[in-house]
Amino acid sequence: MNVLEPQRTIAELKELRALTGDENGAQRVAFTPVWAAARRWLWAKLESLPVEIHTDEAGNLWATLHGESEKALLIGGHIDSVPNGGWLDGCLNVLAGVEILRRISTQYDGKPPITVRLVDWADEEGARFGKSLFGSSACSGNLDLEEARGLIDKNGIPLTEALHDYGIDLETAKNCGKELENAAAYLELHIEQGPVLLDLDLPLGTVLGTFGVERHAITFHGQAAHSGSTPMNRRKDALLAAAHMSPEIYEITDRNGGVCTIGSCNTKPGIVTSVVEECRITLDQRHLDAPALNHMLHEAQAASRRFAGEGNVQVSWERLWQIEPIPFHNTLLDFCDEAITETCGVAHRLPSGPLHDAAEVARAGVPTIMMFVQSLHGISHNKIEDTKEEHLEMAVIAFDKLADKTMKWLTQ
Amino acid sequence: MNVLEPQRTIAELKELRALTGDENGAQRVAFTPVWAAARRWLWAKLESLPVEIHTDEAGNLWATLHGESEKALLIGGHIDSVPNGGWLDGCLNVLAGVEILRRISTQYDGKPPITVRLVDWADEEGARFGKSLFGSSACSGNLDLEEARGLIDKNGIPLTEALHDYGIDLETAKNCGKELENAAAYLELHIEQGPVLLDLDLPLGTVLGTFGVERHAITFHGQAAHSGSTPMNRRKDALLAAAHMSPEIYEITDRNGGVCTIGSCNTKPGIVTSVVEECRITLDQRHLDAPALNHMLHEAQAASRRFAGEGNVQVSWERLWQIEPIPFHNTLLDFCDEAITETCGVAHRLPSGPLHDAAEVARAGVPTIMMFVQSLHGISHNKIEDTKEEHLEMAVIAFDKLADKTMKWLTQ
Repeated sequence: MNVLEPQRTIAELKELRALTGDENGAQRVAFTPVWAAARRWLWAKLESLPVEIHTDEAGNLWATLHGESEKALLIGGHIDSVPNGGWLDGCLNVLAGVEILRRISTQYDGKPPITVRLVDWADEEGARFGKSLFGSSACSGNLDLEEARGLIDKNGIPLTEALHDYGIDLETAKNCGKELENAAAYLELHIEQGPVLLDLDLPLGTVLGTFGVERHAITFHGQAAHSGSTPMNRRKDALLAAAHMSPEIYEITDRNGGVCTIGSCNTKPGIVTSVVEECRITLDQRHLDAPALNHMLHEAQAASRRFAGEGNVQVSWERLWQIEPIPFHNTLLDFCDEAITETCGVAHRLPSGPLHDAAEVARAGVPTIMMFVQSLHGISHNKIEDTKEEHLEMAVIAFDKLADKTMKWLTQ
Repeated sequence: MNVLEPQRTIAELKELRALTGDENGAQRVAFTPVWAAARRWLWAKLESLPVEIHTDEAGNLWATLHGESEKALLIGGHIDSVPNGGWLDGCLNVLAGVEILRRISTQYDGKPPITVRLVDWADEEGARFGKSLFGSSACSGNLDLEEARGLIDKNGIPLTEALHDYGIDLETAKNCGKELENAAAYLELHIEQGPVLLDLDLPLGTVLGTFGVERHAITFHGQAAHSGSTPMNRRKDALLAAAHMSPEIYEITDRNGGVCTIGSCNTKPGIVTSVVEECRITLDQRHLDAPALNHMLHEAQAASRRFAGEGNVQVSWERLWQIEPIPFHNTLLDFCDEAITETCGVAHRLPSGPLHDAAEVARAGVPTIMMFVQSLHGISHNKIEDTKEEHLEMAVIAFDKLADKTMKWLTQ
């Protein structure tokens, strides 16, 4: 009875790559012609299934296999990519979802006990306008309209205009929230984009949730002074205080778990003949546990004040962004472990560092789970992004098992 | 018989400030109209003395009080300033020199036993074209013509063109080296531009020489990686390795003396969501002792390799500039101590971190000495640069004593 063909998913992924990629990688940037071509290609695939297809007010594409009950199992991903992106990021999930829709509609003769819906979210990456999760955050209600109205791309084109070209009115985009009315569970498969499964030599992993993020700019204010005439003990060296933060964040993660990154460092006046007057660094802190994240932030703040005091400089903090940790659903975590164990013997749970559309769906209160498949090189957002074909096959099989278990749970 | 009037020097400094400064400080940038106005004003002052005045092939202004012997005592400084500069940097020396010429010509009825010459070097600061010591390095023979031919200001005007406007031909500038033919000693008074005398509460100091300088760019090469999905122990964080260098340079100077400065830090890709792939810092190291300077450099290189190895990143070094230490003349050091002790009771010897025209004259083999006067706030190249008037008076008196002692030594 099981007609799942994982090899078909791999073939379709290659077909999509040939259609929408070039020698630099995937080029399916949302709200561009290549993305639209990918969407038309997906739409044509779906038309051979007994599903109702439409795009919602935010440009998300929905394919609905109506069941005995309106209660809906959602399978979601995104066909859009970053420029010069990988061939699997986002679309693996969409095409695995297509295959699962095929299996379910065949198995239940077009009428499963509950409704099953595939969603292709619009502009997960935010590559063009610098703001990710457009479609899913519109759907969850978290989209900041005020901010979105001001977004422009590098050519000065406003997001509103790009949306308009694809029939979307920003002002009514959040009306698509109604799509979640009957949603009872949400499943998302994704490549890991990190090296955890690779290092463990495991094909698949159960995602515990997405990290909460605290993102700050930290500026140390010292005093410019001539590099030749200023004795070392007279200096107010903003760089020295900032530099102490770099090893400190490794100690903070040793104590607390999670990850911390200082991604940039800027110096003023920034010339070879002057002690640094002002040094600005950016700190990104992530943890799956909200109190732990908060504790990491306080440790970093205390350390910065200590280093500033020791170096006779001042320090100021500015919050750039934050989001709370989003843990996934306990029952679905168990189903995901089971599906993986049945497919390849060993399950492993890991958090997701990057955000995903799944985080928005979870924030909207829908029981949510993600499954990760191993990423070769631990790298994503790059044309060298890849996953072994045997792991892709296992991913489709395990993800289908997860869908089956979830559907049975929802049918009870 | 002593007709030295230090108050007249202070009055003339104020007159020059009123003529060539504004609310932002001194504006006597070399090869500009304000600088030329300062020069004309100086020329007029000198014309009341029995001196021969001319500018040489590099634009240096010489006022010569011919003596019984052609053997010459030189007193030198620079009337040019940085933009928005201090009122004393450079011109204190020129005007103290004018006062000393007055005293000597009066004392010896216009014919001292040896020749005494005041020189106002052209473009000590290098503020407009980014290369300091133009006139004095032309005179010493160290000017790099190849480099000078390529210098342009921020408006794209070549140095050669700016020189031409003031009657100077770059190609023949180094012919001015003949001015040093009979030079037997060179004296230079300058504000300290640092806080050493201020911290010691001393008005005057004897300058041991100018620091040698090793100036390098150090680049650490790691790997960019997603700040959310990359475990801490998998990172090749170029910033972490570079950050370790910042406290390290303080330990290097603790062990070796001298000064070290990391003046700039640049990160690539330099975004909040990525581990730093490449981090470039500049290191400026200075010491009066050549072997010690060399040792400091080797310590920094070894440390950089150690940090790179610990952090699993690569490191490369690029020399930006170097100059050897230039120690001043032993006999003149003693004379300078004596002159200071006789004037204000306590002498103190200190190195000069910044370079000065005196370094070029010393490199040309002329016995050379500098005297420093305390700088309030320890700050220079700034409109708040200042020195107490009582200290300016002491400086003129002690510098005159130094000139007198040196002349007697040369007359023996």
